[in-house]
Amino acid sequence: MRTAFTELTGVRHPIVGFNRSPAVVAAVTNAGGFGVLAASAYAPDELDAQLTWIEEQVRGRPYGVDLLVPERFAAGDPDDLIASLRAQIPAAHFAFVDDLLDRYGIPPTTTRDVAAEFAAGVSPAGVTALLDVAFQHRISLIANALGTPPPDLVARGKAAGVIVAALVGAPKHAARQLAAGVDLLIAQGTEAGGHTGTIATMVLTPEIVDRAGDTPVLAAGGIADGRQMAAALALGAAGVWCGSVWLSSHEDVANAAIKAKFVDVTSADTVRSPTRTGKPARQLRSAWHDEWERPGSPAPLPLPLQPLLTGEAWQRIDDAAAAGHEGALRLESFFVGQVVGSFTGLRPAAEITRTMAEECAARIAELGRAL
Amino acid sequence: MRTAFTELTGVRHPIVGFNRSPAVVAAVTNAGGFGVLAASAYAPDELDAQLTWIEEQVRGRPYGVDLLVPERFAAGDPDDLIASLRAQIPAAHFAFVDDLLDRYGIPPTTTRDVAAEFAAGVSPAGVTALLDVAFQHRISLIANALGTPPPDLVARGKAAGVIVAALVGAPKHAARQLAAGVDLLIAQGTEAGGHTGTIATMVLTPEIVDRAGDTPVLAAGGIADGRQMAAALALGAAGVWCGSVWLSSHEDVANAAIKAKFVDVTSADTVRSPTRTGKPARQLRSAWHDEWERPGSPAPLPLPLQPLLTGEAWQRIDDAAAAGHEGALRLESFFVGQVVGSFTGLRPAAEITRTMAEECAARIAELGRAL
Repeated sequence: MRTAFTELTGVRHPIVGFNRSPAVVAAVTNAGGFGVLAASAYAPDELDAQLTWIEEQVRGRPYGVDLLVPERFAAGDPDDLIASLRAQIPAAHFAFVDDLLDRYGIPPTTTRDVAAEFAAGVSPAGVTALLDVAFQHRISLIANALGTPPPDLVARGKAAGVIVAALVGAPKHAARQLAAGVDLLIAQGTEAGGHTGTIATMVLTPEIVDRAGDTPVLAAGGIADGRQMAAALALGAAGVWCGSVWLSSHEDVANAAIKAKFVDVTSADTVRSPTRTGKPARQLRSAWHDEWERPGSPAPLPLPLQPLLTGEAWQRIDDAAAAGHEGALRLESFFVGQVVGSFTGLRPAAEITRTMAEECAARIAELGRAL
Repeated sequence: MRTAFTELTGVRHPIVGFNRSPAVVAAVTNAGGFGVLAASAYAPDELDAQLTWIEEQVRGRPYGVDLLVPERFAAGDPDDLIASLRAQIPAAHFAFVDDLLDRYGIPPTTTRDVAAEFAAGVSPAGVTALLDVAFQHRISLIANALGTPPPDLVARGKAAGVIVAALVGAPKHAARQLAAGVDLLIAQGTEAGGHTGTIATMVLTPEIVDRAGDTPVLAAGGIADGRQMAAALALGAAGVWCGSVWLSSHEDVANAAIKAKFVDVTSADTVRSPTRTGKPARQLRSAWHDEWERPGSPAPLPLPLQPLLTGEAWQRIDDAAAAGHEGALRLESFFVGQVVGSFTGLRPAAEITRTMAEECAARIAELGRAL
């Protein structure tokens, strides 16, 4: 298939596989798509190791990274950033989370220093270190999932011949992204997993396409099979940016407990909630959301306070759920879009990529015969 | 174009035009689509006159009606249905609505007996009278927008050779509709205007198609141009059920004030709110919603109490807005989907129909060349 995205990148299928698992990224690229690693999940040395491993697998084929690069960084002395942020969280919020974990009997088995990782992710030094690692590798694309990319990121991308991409959830944001000089827009509809706006892919995609001029647009949100890919192309997209579907791949690193939950649920079982990151993000609905929505529960705090408040709790819930803990399984959740309702089991990521491309081509051919 | 819907109905374009304006219904049918009148907007004698007029215009071409037929009717003596429902509305709710209208200076110029119309719409005698009128005319399709059609409606449709259609907003509802014997399912995504669920068209349509077997499925929600129509067909739909787009037609009977508001707003300016009917319904966001969402405002009541509470208020707001009243213009709203952001002006309904069909065919041909 030939689209503006396949011409820009040289890939065979205009399918981006966005995931935090290096094995998914490599499998999608090697199947003829374009793998993109969620790099914010890693410390700089981890990211370096993961990108090195990916490059050994893809042997020159293109792949990219996705980072959460704020247009402006949090104010304050970076040395005590965590302390200053922690001081802004009301005691009642800490008590609510502690009590919630107690009532579900979640054991205190934190295996990682979540607060330090969090600080790295929001401090200028932390994000710059990840960017440095990314640009030391043979990436073909760098995407920013957190608004308009800052000017130095765009400049670095242009200098290195790396495609700079940015997600957009509303038409009014497209103009700023284009003015910032991005090479690729990703129109992400409300049905997507993770941080989303309120406008559906069906409406948002043509709106962004009409504003983008010659800049290619990928559609994101609600795309997990070949029919949905064909629909995205019909809307004017040059390809699809898929995140959730890879959570149904063997290669995805999510624990078996949450992957099993995903296979069981329907498209009506997600919720767009600010209770995890402080910004509305679509995720699997669980007892966690029931607890936060109960009368008398505190209101979620804004980003970056809410993830600082809840980060360790989620580490404990994930650990306990992975070990089969009953209370943790009730709370367990992860970011996923409405396409989760179509998961019927786990498949290899390469098979997902190829099947999507084949079904898309077949659907387009079938539509042509209906004319 | 040939689809299961064009074969079922004999129309040229698989485009349904759903609207309360007889002139829109006739124009869509005469342009090669399929007009469907929102019959619940009318008293029986009015409906009889409107259907007679439509038939004079379409001269044998197919059209249909859409009704709100509850699977079960509200309990209680029909003679004092309004009184018994009114008694269930807390005094604080009446006071809130009165105060709201006072603060915006809305004059008390009710031109219609809203309460009596409301009673007709929810009483068994009222709905049966509308059904009797519909079946006395040469309708080709009857759709129920309020859940599963009752058995006698399905039986009446089958006996008269009238296609029975039903809207569905979640996969779990499809099985009940199919078991009830409907001939056509309409998968309506969250981006649609009016009563909607939470699942987007991109996700819902293939889910319903996969459950529907040989029963054709139309996609609804987010469809106002040929690209979106092509996308709906790519998702497996046999055609599109469009509602909002006709609000940008010359023929639509909405007042000029609300039509002007529609042309001005973006896709981010709708809200799925229960404040008008008691069930979540997508509509243009206005000062009305700000008032209901303010801390201290009462919680909306369930259907049918909320429309009984607010029906007269909306009659007053619409009348005053049509006369250019400033406070009324701030409150003014109507049911509309996220596609409202694409309205750039008013066009003839026939032009909307033909342009959508032509652009859809062109888009499909273009996709075929990309293979």
